[in-house]
Amino acid sequence: MDSLESVAQQTGIAGVLWQELAVIPTQGGPVLHLLRSEYPLMPFTKGFGEIYFSEVLEDQIKAWKCHRSQTQLFAVPVGLLKVVLFDARQDSPSAGQVQEFLLGRPKHYGLLKIPPRIWYGFTALGGNALLCNCADLPHDPTESERRALDDPFIPYRFPIKPASSPRPDQ
Amino acid sequence: MDSLESVAQQTGIAGVLWQELAVIPTQGGPVLHLLRSEYPLMPFTKGFGEIYFSEVLEDQIKAWKCHRSQTQLFAVPVGLLKVVLFDARQDSPSAGQVQEFLLGRPKHYGLLKIPPRIWYGFTALGGNALLCNCADLPHDPTESERRALDDPFIPYRFPIKPASSPRPDQ
Repeated sequence: MDSLESVAQQTGIAGVLWQELAVIPTQGGPVLHLLRSEYPLMPFTKGFGEIYFSEVLEDQIKAWKCHRSQTQLFAVPVGLLKVVLFDARQDSPSAGQVQEFLLGRPKHYGLLKIPPRIWYGFTALGGNALLCNCADLPHDPTESERRALDDPFIPYRFPIKPASSPRPDQ
Repeated sequence: MDSLESVAQQTGIAGVLWQELAVIPTQGGPVLHLLRSEYPLMPFTKGFGEIYFSEVLEDQIKAWKCHRSQTQLFAVPVGLLKVVLFDARQDSPSAGQVQEFLLGRPKHYGLLKIPPRIWYGFTALGGNALLCNCADLPHDPTESERRALDDPFIPYRFPIKPASSPRPDQ
């Protein structure tokens, strides 16, 4: 294990952790680590949950979602994703806090751990992005909630990019 | 589980199996399934192995490699990958057989199971591709072998794209 992968760092919102992942240059294109048993953020210590991808098209926004019991582990192997978290846990030391993260290579390739009861949303910057989500519990539609992008409950607004206007006649 | 994900199909080389994966259109970009416990090709029934990505740059070739004991599970969420397998197992009903697969959306998104002792190589067609490899055992450099692209042991040649020639002066 690369030594950078042995440490999980606190971020700001309680329980939101960050672990860097190695990107290894090889002939033909790099190898990108994702999950190994010995990682501090390994989510499958009590059994396998689920892994899926969410592709986010350029400037599109997917928000807001919150899980009651599932922990999410985000990694972004392709593109650049802005992830926004909101701590709505009244019993949390960081209750009410909003936090932004940029995920993507080369500087921000790693695992972002989002504990239950944190609201999250994300958008792809400068092109499409691929999010890989390793969840510690199998998919269960009854344990997640959604809110609209402009729900006043969440004190954050994603900038909405206006549709490009037609070129004026010359 | 989508019903298409409940079936693993034989391909041609003994033990090489294919399971389709669902791609679910959603606002902002599709969700792509990768791994769930109940999948017929689930690799982590005896404990977690490793998951990593291999990015393959356009027209680049990564070949040849063979594992003695590890089983590989390939999925390609981004781009189009040509994967070539060679069965060098003398005790196999398909000994000596070469097989080509195209992996990538929209038609070929799924899991390709490559058992131990199969040689494999791949190349990215028409752009960069991202391979996600779910291996049933943790990384162990002593249990894999490599051969050069033109090793006569393997009866397959990847086409080498010539470097683009400079434009003639006008």
